Amino acid sequence: MGMTMTQKILAVHAGIENVKAGQLIEANLDLVLGNDITTPVALNEFEKFGVNKVFSKSKIAIVPDHFTPNKDIKTAEQVKYIREFSKEMEIENYFEVGEMGIEHCLIPEKGLAVAGDVIIGADSHTCTYGALGAFSTGIGSTDMAAGMATGKAWFKVPSALKFILKNKPAKWVSGKDIILHIIGMIGVDGALYKSMEFVGDGLKYLTMDDRFTIANMAIEAGGKNGIFPVDEKTIEYLKEHTTRKWKSYEADEDAEYDGVFEIDLSKLRPTISFPHSPDNTKEIDNIGDVYIDQVVIGSCTNGRISDLRIARDILKGKKVRKGIRCIVIPGTQKIYLQALEEGIIKDLVEAGAVFSTPTCGPCLGGHMGILAKGEKAVSTTNRNFVGRMGHVKSEVYLASPAVAAASALTGKITDPELV
Amino acid sequence: MGMTMTQKILAVHAGIENVKAGQLIEANLDLVLGNDITTPVALNEFEKFGVNKVFSKSKIAIVPDHFTPNKDIKTAEQVKYIREFSKEMEIENYFEVGEMGIEHCLIPEKGLAVAGDVIIGADSHTCTYGALGAFSTGIGSTDMAAGMATGKAWFKVPSALKFILKNKPAKWVSGKDIILHIIGMIGVDGALYKSMEFVGDGLKYLTMDDRFTIANMAIEAGGKNGIFPVDEKTIEYLKEHTTRKWKSYEADEDAEYDGVFEIDLSKLRPTISFPHSPDNTKEIDNIGDVYIDQVVIGSCTNGRISDLRIARDILKGKKVRKGIRCIVIPGTQKIYLQALEEGIIKDLVEAGAVFSTPTCGPCLGGHMGILAKGEKAVSTTNRNFVGRMGHVKSEVYLASPAVAAASALTGKITDPELV
Repeated sequence: MGMTMTQKILAVHAGIENVKAGQLIEANLDLVLGNDITTPVALNEFEKFGVNKVFSKSKIAIVPDHFTPNKDIKTAEQVKYIREFSKEMEIENYFEVGEMGIEHCLIPEKGLAVAGDVIIGADSHTCTYGALGAFSTGIGSTDMAAGMATGKAWFKVPSALKFILKNKPAKWVSGKDIILHIIGMIGVDGALYKSMEFVGDGLKYLTMDDRFTIANMAIEAGGKNGIFPVDEKTIEYLKEHTTRKWKSYEADEDAEYDGVFEIDLSKLRPTISFPHSPDNTKEIDNIGDVYIDQVVIGSCTNGRISDLRIARDILKGKKVRKGIRCIVIPGTQKIYLQALEEGIIKDLVEAGAVFSTPTCGPCLGGHMGILAKGEKAVSTTNRNFVGRMGHVKSEVYLASPAVAAASALTGKITDPELV
Repeated sequence: MGMTMTQKILAVHAGIENVKAGQLIEANLDLVLGNDITTPVALNEFEKFGVNKVFSKSKIAIVPDHFTPNKDIKTAEQVKYIREFSKEMEIENYFEVGEMGIEHCLIPEKGLAVAGDVIIGADSHTCTYGALGAFSTGIGSTDMAAGMATGKAWFKVPSALKFILKNKPAKWVSGKDIILHIIGMIGVDGALYKSMEFVGDGLKYLTMDDRFTIANMAIEAGGKNGIFPVDEKTIEYLKEHTTRKWKSYEADEDAEYDGVFEIDLSKLRPTISFPHSPDNTKEIDNIGDVYIDQVVIGSCTNGRISDLRIARDILKGKKVRKGIRCIVIPGTQKIYLQALEEGIIKDLVEAGAVFSTPTCGPCLGGHMGILAKGEKAVSTTNRNFVGRMGHVKSEVYLASPAVAAASALTGKITDPELV
């Protein structure tokens, strides 16, 4: 029996020739990642191990991105704890405010994730790096602690679902619409503990940013990981961002899949996840009038430069509707500077949006745009569970940057074609 | 007996010819101001009055600046409350996220404060507008409520201290250094319930932004208000920012002062307020090595364009020291855009600072840079009381933007001349 992309990567990292779904293996890790929420918990565990050093100073990344710049004393204490640990352990990839960004935007940008890697991160959206052809998955803080100490982690080899993406998507259909469509189709547990492998001729129409968005939300279908084959765009991205060596893996022709889905991208429409689940999706044409109070454009899902460009294309020279808060949050300092260079910040602020320093912020109800009772937001983030962005009686509608920006102009969820 | 500037303005607004220190008067108000902390409390009081409208739709300004974009559910609820009230009462000068700024930067910029006004605001730094030759003072939320209902407020006419500023300050001596010097000289209750009138040939060397900074911190010496005579720079500012009529008042030659202080600006040095009181001042030459964790450049005291220009002049082409968080917060969206236009944001972010959307933020321990236990910040804000910017065991050192920026480069409080 052949192996999937994911299985091949895991086999190599376990030092064995063949693995199959369900098998327990111990794999060597190329990167262990944590943030300001999960790392303090991991450090509590790490200290119990009684070891006085980490397995590698260069293969651990710690990114205090959720509540920074520090939103309150508690989060300031948490960041102080991980900062001091990083200093003591001489962790090279601790990122301070000012060199920081949202971890899943920052790690690829810094060249710390490459094709063929096995990466664990104490954050569920660690699956993002599958866009680069890595096996990358979210784990708990205890596994992070063990990974930091040993450089290894145990995995149950996942089975896989294959998504064959065909044809060219229409103008306003982005990676976000594709993954929301898929989540709506298979449900939030449709890929439970499985790999989601994305293939097909449609890939060539997807930018790297589209792919990051799709891989990022694999977890919202329950997936263990999402993964893309390495193509010219991947190689171009890697060449631009890393000096590390990478290796691309293709699934064997006789690899086994638990399911195969063909998706005609040309038939997709801008898609919105209604409250309170990412799989509660509707196409833009069937949503009626949904009035909103706030628009958020950002997060590890859609805080990249191409997302900001789309927002700019729609908002430039127009005005955010009176009474609507439009909050734009770039993923990293580099994206911030790129947006500045391209005039995007100017266009967005002149349109009446605010432009934040990088942070996860409101996505997880952290800060920088929390919702009051009864308020509604359209957001490019990844989750819309009850109370995710604030009050339990608030509502979050997940959408692409294009839909979010169009909605900022009208005050209700709007097809970008109509503004 | 003649009258001071302040007394003349109060007399006119009370409709009586002469007032004297200690007299109780009821004055007509030109502006009633509130923010997201104080306005909800004021509205609770307002509702008890049983009136169903405000005295004027145009003479009330409500600026949710302290915890916005909303930092948590509680603050989101507070802003929602004042937003809905403003809508119901058709208050013209309610400022939403995206058109918002720090109230004391925003109000003059919007032309809502002019020379000769009587202004009350439920925020202690409302005294800022004295820079424009207005009588402007902070009041409690109950007085704000009464002001919104009636357009009037009771005052005990203040006596006054006269500060005669002489000569030209040296290169790195700004309005901030002047007011810190004065507070250090007379103490935090040195001007208790008195007007602080700033006069002298030295005024001509002070920009409007310097004057806003000085008037802003009158309250830190206990002053009822701080006030400047109207000169060419004031008139230029007013012409640029307002369509309202203004009136300038000069103190009578025989006005009585409780004290007169002559200050030779040419002798001043960059001045720092050590923890935990604004009057605990030292000159830069006598501070030893004070290592810091964070730098904050912003606030109603020093978040104006000239403050950002100074920070840029010092940081451009250099790097914030590794491990130091340098957080820059412009006062308003207009200042944000101006900074963008002048390349200041680019220079600061390239230097390793972060640039926030406008907010009061860390100044009052709100968000965007709260300190953990044991951490130290040098900050251009106005107060350094115990726990002001976070943990009760943290420390805040008040300084000018020049000193703050220089300190960001070195990691300890530094004379800008030396970087």
